[in-house]
Amino acid sequence: MKILVANLGSTSFKYRLYELPSETQLARGGIERIGQGGGACFVEIGGKREELTRDVMDHAQAVSICLEQLTHPQTGCLKSVSEVAGIGFKAVFAGNLSGIRVVTPELLTKMEELADIAPAHNPMYAKAMRQLQAAFPQIPLVASLETAFHDTIPEAHRTYAIPYEWKEQYEICRWGFHGASHRFLSTRMGQILGRDDLKVITCHLGGSNSVCAVKSGKSIANSLGMSPQTGLPHNNRVGDFDPFALPILLRKTGKTLDQILQDLSNKGGLLGLSGLSQDVRDLEAAAAQGHARAQLALDVFIAAIRQYVGGYMALLGGADAVVFSGGIGENSQVIREGVLRNMEWCGLEFDEARNKPLRGEGPIHKDGSRVQAWVIPTNEEIVVARQTSEALESEVKSQKSKVKSG
Amino acid sequence: MKILVANLGSTSFKYRLYELPSETQLARGGIERIGQGGGACFVEIGGKREELTRDVMDHAQAVSICLEQLTHPQTGCLKSVSEVAGIGFKAVFAGNLSGIRVVTPELLTKMEELADIAPAHNPMYAKAMRQLQAAFPQIPLVASLETAFHDTIPEAHRTYAIPYEWKEQYEICRWGFHGASHRFLSTRMGQILGRDDLKVITCHLGGSNSVCAVKSGKSIANSLGMSPQTGLPHNNRVGDFDPFALPILLRKTGKTLDQILQDLSNKGGLLGLSGLSQDVRDLEAAAAQGHARAQLALDVFIAAIRQYVGGYMALLGGADAVVFSGGIGENSQVIREGVLRNMEWCGLEFDEARNKPLRGEGPIHKDGSRVQAWVIPTNEEIVVARQTSEALESEVKSQKSKVKSG
Repeated sequence: MKILVANLGSTSFKYRLYELPSETQLARGGIERIGQGGGACFVEIGGKREELTRDVMDHAQAVSICLEQLTHPQTGCLKSVSEVAGIGFKAVFAGNLSGIRVVTPELLTKMEELADIAPAHNPMYAKAMRQLQAAFPQIPLVASLETAFHDTIPEAHRTYAIPYEWKEQYEICRWGFHGASHRFLSTRMGQILGRDDLKVITCHLGGSNSVCAVKSGKSIANSLGMSPQTGLPHNNRVGDFDPFALPILLRKTGKTLDQILQDLSNKGGLLGLSGLSQDVRDLEAAAAQGHARAQLALDVFIAAIRQYVGGYMALLGGADAVVFSGGIGENSQVIREGVLRNMEWCGLEFDEARNKPLRGEGPIHKDGSRVQAWVIPTNEEIVVARQTSEALESEVKSQKSKVKSG
Repeated sequence: MKILVANLGSTSFKYRLYELPSETQLARGGIERIGQGGGACFVEIGGKREELTRDVMDHAQAVSICLEQLTHPQTGCLKSVSEVAGIGFKAVFAGNLSGIRVVTPELLTKMEELADIAPAHNPMYAKAMRQLQAAFPQIPLVASLETAFHDTIPEAHRTYAIPYEWKEQYEICRWGFHGASHRFLSTRMGQILGRDDLKVITCHLGGSNSVCAVKSGKSIANSLGMSPQTGLPHNNRVGDFDPFALPILLRKTGKTLDQILQDLSNKGGLLGLSGLSQDVRDLEAAAAQGHARAQLALDVFIAAIRQYVGGYMALLGGADAVVFSGGIGENSQVIREGVLRNMEWCGLEFDEARNKPLRGEGPIHKDGSRVQAWVIPTNEEIVVARQTSEALESEVKSQKSKVKSG
């Protein structure tokens, strides 16, 4: 079964084409500057890279170009579009319509209704999915919700101390996000140590950041709460914040609640703290030159990760391993050292010498450390591909059983 | 020097009278049902208790009655009101006017301006202080702000990942509260272990709850952030919450932001979770009878405390001791056991047998446990008395030096 995994940005479309169950990656590609003119499109098939520039109007046209490239008679890897069994999406949030789901009108409406919660993602995904359904009605779309892996979080870790009926009626609770990445990382850590009963703390640190507590393969807590703006500071989003500061901000700035929340979701995080950049590489360079607020941004970020790691050790009753991943987690020695130095109290002995820039996965703890620490490159796409294929197979089964019983 | 320490509730006034520097408690008393008619007043002096019922209009009248009782020719302990050198208050919040301060019009205005942040406390304290200044202009009032002990929290733990100018211009940051209690508990823990370089985590659990990380006597982090509604769940206040859930709540309930924040500050916490009671004793009794939401409230509360304790161990780089205090911390075996069981991973061996109801202070760790755990009754009043006396002495000194130089 061939699955196309789509990764949507507001003006970009990246994809990978997988053969399952072998998990062979047949192709990958990307299209930039969607809706902006002069789009750069590339595709890599069997080690060969093709590039072209074309004006791309919307995500449906981007997928058209992608399918054109994949079915190209000379350079493509597919004979026809009908070989694509489905397109899988790492969709963000649809409240209690969590899990892995074939995309339905009900799901799209729910994603649009919850736009407040994931303003950077939900409207864009819903729009692109609607365009794709219209343009390619024969290809099933599957949404792998970021909250799916966290459906196992126990009520005690999921529930805010709010009037309880708000949880029941309006689904206000800690959902958790970045599910595909935390699932991949905790599974991979289990493979490395050859155990399926591990207590693992996975740190997905990229533009959007989260820490997850995983016990025997199941998420039991995630630093992202109701919305993807909570938990750790993000590139330009706030992380944990006190709603009782809002009346002061409304009065002092003269802005509306929506405007303040917008500021918190695109002028906060590492960008807001530093006043300089949302990119940890820029902040490390500036801090090394003595830029005080770049240093503050790094210090706040490190302290927040450290606090979540310690907090989740307590929820897990200790951990077997701490895992770093994502653009920052895989590449920033500074952040990893800040989080892991001086952690002997919990049995984690950090190895400075191993904490060099790594290519691929590797340990960063000292030999004999009771709690291990690893860098593991994440692979959300393969998780989405697996889940999409499973969802399509179970859809086929359920339709067959309907036909039989009908 | 005789210092009266006042503890104000919205309809109550409790007080203790201390002699300093000996710290002898000369008297204590309380007045209930202020402004409601039929007020119950009591005073204890030298082991003898007097009670009377009187209609008490406001806090100024309550203090009048208190001073009447203290100077009573037969039963009192003071010859005249002029013996009272000052009245100290555990005031809550005045933003950057933190610390210990003789009450000035500037301070009162600031407390009133910041009523949004501490709606249950600030307006009431400011009003009562104004009444007292008018009624007893000769007695200096001293505010020991709850934030004072937390003035040492480093920027990395104090700063939200918001646009930085909001911190500079509007004082939006993690202030920390319950300072007098955390100061008392960490100081006392140092006395017990005979060390002033301890890393201590103090848990003040009463109606209002917080966890504090203290390093060598200095607060480095507190679970209460910008407002006293954050951090752990409280009796009826929410604790940590995601502001991005607010637009949904506004739309679904039709309420205003102020109304939703009001709900979060008096219909949330243990009360909101359980739908039953804000009192842990009631919740424990109900949970033992199988009441699911009482159990949920306890579970959420325990998980939140546990997560903060683990998180603060990480910020401190390990802890020497964890301390429990306040009405819940001193009395609830269930909460203490929930927080401390299964903590061997960090070197804390909890002793179930010692975790019985304690009168006074005592250890609840096993002999030989690397991290100790203690129950210590708090005494915020003595901290306020000490601070009030120090503030008055330094005020006198500064006035003398002004006279000399003038």
